[in-house]
Amino acid sequence: MLIEDRLKELKELINRKVPAGITVSDVEFEGPELVIYTDDPKQFADQADLIRVLARDLRKRIVVRPTVLEDPERAYDDIKEIVPENAGITDIFFDPDTGEVLIEAEKPGVVIGKNGATLRDITKSIGWTPKVVRTPPIESSTVKQIRTYLRAIRDERKEFLRASGRRIHRDILAKDQWVRVTTLGCCREVGRAAFLLSTPESRILIDCGEKPGATNGATPYLGVPEIHPLTNLDAVVLTHAHLDHCALIPLLFRYGFTGPIYATPPTRDLSSMLQLDYLEVIRKEDRPAPYTSNEVKQYVKHSITLNYGSVTDIAPDIKLTFHNAGHILGSAIAHFHVGDGLYNIAFTGDFNYGKSRLFNPANAHFPRLEAIFMESTYGASQDATPSRKEAESRLYDVIKRAIERGGKVIIPAFAVGRSQEVMLALEEGIRKGDLPQIKVYLDGMIKEATAIHTTYPEYLNSDLRNQIFREGLNPFLSECFEQVDSSDKREAVINGEPSVIITTSGMMNGGPVIEYLQNLAADERNTLVFVGYQADGTLGRRIQKGWREIPYGSKGSITINLEVTTVEGFSGHSDRRQLMSYVSHMQPKPEKIFCIHGEESKTLDLASSIYKKFHIQTHSPMNLETYRMV
Amino acid sequence: MLIEDRLKELKELINRKVPAGITVSDVEFEGPELVIYTDDPKQFADQADLIRVLARDLRKRIVVRPTVLEDPERAYDDIKEIVPENAGITDIFFDPDTGEVLIEAEKPGVVIGKNGATLRDITKSIGWTPKVVRTPPIESSTVKQIRTYLRAIRDERKEFLRASGRRIHRDILAKDQWVRVTTLGCCREVGRAAFLLSTPESRILIDCGEKPGATNGATPYLGVPEIHPLTNLDAVVLTHAHLDHCALIPLLFRYGFTGPIYATPPTRDLSSMLQLDYLEVIRKEDRPAPYTSNEVKQYVKHSITLNYGSVTDIAPDIKLTFHNAGHILGSAIAHFHVGDGLYNIAFTGDFNYGKSRLFNPANAHFPRLEAIFMESTYGASQDATPSRKEAESRLYDVIKRAIERGGKVIIPAFAVGRSQEVMLALEEGIRKGDLPQIKVYLDGMIKEATAIHTTYPEYLNSDLRNQIFREGLNPFLSECFEQVDSSDKREAVINGEPSVIITTSGMMNGGPVIEYLQNLAADERNTLVFVGYQADGTLGRRIQKGWREIPYGSKGSITINLEVTTVEGFSGHSDRRQLMSYVSHMQPKPEKIFCIHGEESKTLDLASSIYKKFHIQTHSPMNLETYRMV
Repeated sequence: MLIEDRLKELKELINRKVPAGITVSDVEFEGPELVIYTDDPKQFADQADLIRVLARDLRKRIVVRPTVLEDPERAYDDIKEIVPENAGITDIFFDPDTGEVLIEAEKPGVVIGKNGATLRDITKSIGWTPKVVRTPPIESSTVKQIRTYLRAIRDERKEFLRASGRRIHRDILAKDQWVRVTTLGCCREVGRAAFLLSTPESRILIDCGEKPGATNGATPYLGVPEIHPLTNLDAVVLTHAHLDHCALIPLLFRYGFTGPIYATPPTRDLSSMLQLDYLEVIRKEDRPAPYTSNEVKQYVKHSITLNYGSVTDIAPDIKLTFHNAGHILGSAIAHFHVGDGLYNIAFTGDFNYGKSRLFNPANAHFPRLEAIFMESTYGASQDATPSRKEAESRLYDVIKRAIERGGKVIIPAFAVGRSQEVMLALEEGIRKGDLPQIKVYLDGMIKEATAIHTTYPEYLNSDLRNQIFREGLNPFLSECFEQVDSSDKREAVINGEPSVIITTSGMMNGGPVIEYLQNLAADERNTLVFVGYQADGTLGRRIQKGWREIPYGSKGSITINLEVTTVEGFSGHSDRRQLMSYVSHMQPKPEKIFCIHGEESKTLDLASSIYKKFHIQTHSPMNLETYRMV
Repeated sequence: MLIEDRLKELKELINRKVPAGITVSDVEFEGPELVIYTDDPKQFADQADLIRVLARDLRKRIVVRPTVLEDPERAYDDIKEIVPENAGITDIFFDPDTGEVLIEAEKPGVVIGKNGATLRDITKSIGWTPKVVRTPPIESSTVKQIRTYLRAIRDERKEFLRASGRRIHRDILAKDQWVRVTTLGCCREVGRAAFLLSTPESRILIDCGEKPGATNGATPYLGVPEIHPLTNLDAVVLTHAHLDHCALIPLLFRYGFTGPIYATPPTRDLSSMLQLDYLEVIRKEDRPAPYTSNEVKQYVKHSITLNYGSVTDIAPDIKLTFHNAGHILGSAIAHFHVGDGLYNIAFTGDFNYGKSRLFNPANAHFPRLEAIFMESTYGASQDATPSRKEAESRLYDVIKRAIERGGKVIIPAFAVGRSQEVMLALEEGIRKGDLPQIKVYLDGMIKEATAIHTTYPEYLNSDLRNQIFREGLNPFLSECFEQVDSSDKREAVINGEPSVIITTSGMMNGGPVIEYLQNLAADERNTLVFVGYQADGTLGRRIQKGWREIPYGSKGSITINLEVTTVEGFSGHSDRRQLMSYVSHMQPKPEKIFCIHGEESKTLDLASSIYKKFHIQTHSPMNLETYRMV
């Protein structure tokens, strides 16, 4: 059926279902949503259950928009009148193209009202569809830039959503039924994650990352014919924002991709921030860049954000649902439902099945599940890491020792994930007296990453959320933290009182950490603490291995006299015990488990252990293979 | 390097290597060969070893052609003068485009002379490159048509060979190294053989057949992106002429393929004959045809024939060698050498590791071999078939019984392979007195297929070749055989003396066998003997299962009173014992064996048995999977 006929049919169907007196002027697919345009948004909003019933019957995500919109200035006043003062509205933005009004408020719950009553009042009053976001306690320049950019390109974006929507809802033409996964990277190795999920009808790319530290084979196998032409790719799905999963997504636009990228809102923001930083690092090292910031803009323009649990059509025969992965902010397990009950397959991305300070453990329950591609970073039998509690206690000891002898503590850490975990541990230590009242300085992109965390508190775990909202105690805002944003400030920190410095890069490959090391390495009262994995070939690894004289730059070398120590247990990954525990708690049990994202020995060990213990068919695929699921 | 520069370099190199006084006017790639054009073909031919040395040093197949050619009429007289009378020349054809002269003779050996001396004399005298073919004892209209067609399109073909040659010898650009095989059909099933061998540089399709009797899924998975665009496919390699391996090759030209198809000469001829017959069957059954005779012509135009043992560049990083497969005339095991010693992989196609009347057992020795895709038609433990000797003795008994009681014997058989095996068994039985002096009538395409067999005696086994050449006893020419080529003749056979009728189709799905059945089924003195596999859904299978009243056409039904019997052991496939014996005799032993071309239970059984006995890694792939070899 032509899509126009299909929309016509849907319009008639909806007209039969809405009560008399409500006019449906138009029906359109926009991205994965079915948008109903009505002349009577107020009456529509009155029918509390109508949208839910339509969504259920049509099996679509439904959005209602007014055909004609009220004048923004009058609507602005209306909103201010309807919403109670204590909501703390900080910004109201009208997007005439989507018919949405973005309301930024300190207490979004007050804007929404009980069961959405206040929101419905707003809709009834102004026609515009209200969308409520929380006023971030720390302003993120990334989030601001992205919102500004999306407003600026709203015409293009509307066109893009409309085209995507029509493509997603096209008729299924293929007569065959099969589901395949092709491995384009990240098999028997860590890095360059990229998997192609394909059916006779659709093709979905899951992740597209780089391999950090690789001199050869740094990109996934994007040259193979399976994914070409990229115009035939239905969508890209991004599990989380780390560069080994997201770095090369903008490159796809260079190769002709024009479709949507699905990610959670924090993943979109964090990944575009990290992509820009990735380009900056490449520029500083004078290497050829695979793409420019223009392609990062393309990425943002083509991104469609989905929250956890929202079941979404992304192709005529594929529904995507994101589930919490517990790894970093917005990290998701991507679950695909293929066909009408034909097959269910999930990709964990990186996941943590332990509870951390920031996140709940990864989701292990799915409505249905036949196969899962599971990360195996710590998949070998000997890969047990200490508990978070032990790790924190060890870190406290190391810090106390240094502070007592008048030293400073340098903690190199990735901007996203580990930094925030360590921040929260230190904040609690200082607050509860387990640590002295010291300053914790943040240098590099950590502050910006933290700002993005505070923009999306609903992605943090319930304890932390409660602490922030119920107890009004946002640990990220603690006075113990201080941002370093100039050379002068950095110098002051170096010459100042005993303190802790969390700084990038995490493996000491450049970044401000180098300046701290140059100035603090000679003094044996100071301490360098590794809290994350140091890859071969990095400066971090060398120091960890015991080098005490580091040739560096034209200034000669750095002499390492400070204490060097490693505290394990802050990882965002499940360790071996947690991986096995995850399989044992998975509901339902999948028929097949593919162990990926780990060194060869670890994927083989985990695959064989799972098979032996659970009698589930397991594989440890190589790159460039295709597995038939059904 | 540009191909023009490469040719220039080769020309300079060759000029340095040829003795003074011989001019190389041009050097060109034509298909897999390097053609050296010279003004002095006579002097070139005098240097007996020169071509061999050039071929070895340049690692290319070398052909020498004169820049200027002698007038065909004078050259004709020269050939007649040089070649001894007893060679029995029956035709001389000059192809100005290739500079070749085709000499058809009853005794090609005489035209060639001792160590090629006479051929060299011809070359020296006329400049044209002589190519000698045997005058077939039974004229094949297929072979004649193909030769005529190739002569008619010589300009196009020259252009095609030149383009293919340049493509084969292009520079290797890819930096990665890997070898993959994608299964497009014929896995856990019999039929629609199609495998894609790919490297970062090249893509080769092995076979492209139909699935006989399938109502759904009759073609390989040609829609998947791995093989598109077909213009990027470097070559198609055809193992043998049966329709489940070759039927859909012409279809590839509809989808944009423009490259070469490699096959042995008999495979090219038999397959194009069977493709035309395939179209005819479809036409008669009023089904839509996947292609027309135009695409069969395209196939012939794009075919490049290779004999067993000839190591041939078919892509910048792939060399192909055909080895005898013992299955039908020209059937080959395709061996691929990838890269410079990187990997060796073979595809058996269908193969027989037993000696048959027509062929030697399949080749089991390869210079190197890491992986093999092996047919498993009779791969289950219980799949033992009687020896050929037992089978023949049983067939003799069945025939004698029918003849003695005044009956006729109908043997439905495939035109290619089984028919000839049965013919040879009957000829010997009649000649040696194990059978009475009866007539054996051949109806359908059997005669034409037999004619093609006699065109390529070098593809028959040594016993049969000796019998034909040394003893002058060509069993196919025996007086016991008589062709049925009209309805009158057919009626005469039906109403005539007791006799044997070998006729198509082999599974009684149409063809002249039906007419025989209609007229001979009621008489219980007659016998119907199945010598081949009867697939589900065919008339043959129904009768074999015991149906005695067959509804047929508008004439009502056929009553089966004649004796119905099955004689096993004439198969062109290895039985289970032979498959295991093949693995045990393979030299070298491959690291991986993929069991394909068999029902699911058989491929699984064979894969597991081989693993248990030989400790070789085995797989029983599904369709649509990709395996990484290295």
